Amino acid sequence: MKGLFIVLEGPDGSGKSTMAQMIASYLEDKGHNIVFTREPGGTPIGEKLRDIILDNKNIEMADTTEALLYAAARAQLVAEKIKPLIEKGKTIISERFVYSSLVYQGIGRKLGVNNVKMINDFGLQGIKPDIVLFFDIDPEKALNRKIEINGGDRLEQEDISFHRSVFEGYKEIIKDYSEIKTINAERTKEEIFEEIKFIIDENLNKIFNSEKY
Amino acid sequence: MKGLFIVLEGPDGSGKSTMAQMIASYLEDKGHNIVFTREPGGTPIGEKLRDIILDNKNIEMADTTEALLYAAARAQLVAEKIKPLIEKGKTIISERFVYSSLVYQGIGRKLGVNNVKMINDFGLQGIKPDIVLFFDIDPEKALNRKIEINGGDRLEQEDISFHRSVFEGYKEIIKDYSEIKTINAERTKEEIFEEIKFIIDENLNKIFNSEKY
Repeated sequence: MKGLFIVLEGPDGSGKSTMAQMIASYLEDKGHNIVFTREPGGTPIGEKLRDIILDNKNIEMADTTEALLYAAARAQLVAEKIKPLIEKGKTIISERFVYSSLVYQGIGRKLGVNNVKMINDFGLQGIKPDIVLFFDIDPEKALNRKIEINGGDRLEQEDISFHRSVFEGYKEIIKDYSEIKTINAERTKEEIFEEIKFIIDENLNKIFNSEKY
Repeated sequence: MKGLFIVLEGPDGSGKSTMAQMIASYLEDKGHNIVFTREPGGTPIGEKLRDIILDNKNIEMADTTEALLYAAARAQLVAEKIKPLIEKGKTIISERFVYSSLVYQGIGRKLGVNNVKMINDFGLQGIKPDIVLFFDIDPEKALNRKIEINGGDRLEQEDISFHRSVFEGYKEIIKDYSEIKTINAERTKEEIFEEIKFIIDENLNKIFNSEKY
């Protein structure tokens, strides 16, 4: 059975982790073998890079460095996990992927979406998710929820105007990436998950039909 | 006074460090204010990346990750040191720069010179050295000298065929980068330095004349 590569995108605190768990249970019941990955990180090398990227002490980090480190962690994740796992038929659920870099570094840091896309494509080896869900929720609302829980790392402590420009960035890139589905995330868990199930089922049918003929 | 940005390139053990010291003394006597940088590293963030890149335990590192980490360390070096130092009129002497990535990752790792150039240009902010010296010495000869001294890190332990393809890579890119001067490094220190002094003086005259008119 061919697995799915599912990516969850959206502001911190928008409910990605909760939905990732619910999607996993749903697909496990259908016989899928689930692997979770997280960004940045997800591999031993990637986790070391995560520590450097998110360290509050590294305030002197250049925006270009930050973008290249995200791309490096992602390149390692693709090479070491995502690509081999896809080949083995696993279903991968990833919180964040290249789209986060396009908006956080490309738009939020003003490095340019195309420039950031270019350095990321270098490491993607042509890998593309089957489903990308964008959790659409006011970033301030989402962020306050997150900071209440864990205090906030270097990126979470950025000015709210940064998070707002990132949020607008998502809306901007959605036009160019047809694989991204927007999910109204200001509803109840149950309502949100109903919509996600519908999207997943649609994709599974597509795969089923393409394998049949 | 405008400083110089001088880069030393060539196989490990080709005498770059020794010449860097001799160049520094020579230019200090002429009133230059010298700053040494090294690659990968040269900044607190860059040194953390250096540890990850050169760690013998990180054998599962993908080639794409390696190339992006070199580019990230270099982007930080440019933003935090090279660019501000150039603006202050300092003379910078760097062992290795983007040319090393073009040949080690672009040709040695077969990622493509243009691909590697692209991810590096992203972080260079248009910075270009005044002088690039390529130390031309048989890589096996140079490498044995280096390993005798320090035992060798992850890259130095690569098969000699890798180092030979890198060496041929240097010869290849020299055609496209007119700023690179080839120095026959199989001579005595004194002979090598005589030639380097000549190249430096030529550049200083150029700068002097351009400042005059």
